[in-house]
Amino acid sequence: MTQAADLLALARELGVMIATAESCTAGMISAAITDPPGASAIFDRGFVTYTNRAKIDLLGVRAETLEAFGAVSEEVAREMASGAYDRSDADFAVSVTGIAGPGHEGPKPEGRVCFGLAGPGGVRTETVDFGALGRAHVRQATVDHALGLLISAITQ
Amino acid sequence: MTQAADLLALARELGVMIATAESCTAGMISAAITDPPGASAIFDRGFVTYTNRAKIDLLGVRAETLEAFGAVSEEVAREMASGAYDRSDADFAVSVTGIAGPGHEGPKPEGRVCFGLAGPGGVRTETVDFGALGRAHVRQATVDHALGLLISAITQ
Repeated sequence: MTQAADLLALARELGVMIATAESCTAGMISAAITDPPGASAIFDRGFVTYTNRAKIDLLGVRAETLEAFGAVSEEVAREMASGAYDRSDADFAVSVTGIAGPGHEGPKPEGRVCFGLAGPGGVRTETVDFGALGRAHVRQATVDHALGLLISAITQ
Repeated sequence: MTQAADLLALARELGVMIATAESCTAGMISAAITDPPGASAIFDRGFVTYTNRAKIDLLGVRAETLEAFGAVSEEVAREMASGAYDRSDADFAVSVTGIAGPGHEGPKPEGRVCFGLAGPGGVRTETVDFGALGRAHVRQATVDHALGLLISAITQ
């Protein structure tokens, strides 16, 4: 079974709904979750917030947080996950914000992705450095990791 | 060049921003638009409105429209595209709502997808019957058609 099929089976069995808030993957996570037929039983909605303005408008991320920590930070991932959780009918919301590259310059490394996971028990965040392995690779690794986080959160 | 690379080159040249409103493709269109590096110059945000409630909450689709015409209708595609256009900083917004299948029963055929395209000149809609060729095929054909609609609208 694929990870998406695992997630669908689990979420359906436990009756949970999922929402997403995506920056660097821009819809790839919601697309993956809905790949297996029957996903409408477990997927509610997704927010593709590619720009900072979109993160503020659609998810309620604070401009001060973006300014203080940058878009690729656990602080922003936390507000994205909370925002999606609060603005949906979902039981769990996953968020991602990262540097897919290529050509990134700055203090944060290309391939860094920050994740947020909001659920009934609150919000937790983490950072993964996938490395500068190319845009497609980083985006796909981010999708796989996000599905893993959802599966782990739902089964806990 | 891929269709996404064509779209990026065109939109960047003309300085236009794009938004999406997706139901059956659930993020595949926004993921495709942002596949080439540099997409942040042309992609603003996306709304993945898988449930009827999400269409109402995030895009302002009217419950009466959903009830009268069903989620897979040009009327709903129109309100989704308008909603994304009004709720973004985009110059063009594309919407899709369709029956990816499998296992669909009802008066509308599996493989039917309704598209909306909102821009400075207003909103237009169309329906394509891709046929009951399988979930993955219908979803990918929908992405390709949506990118074509955006390219056509931007170059007009």
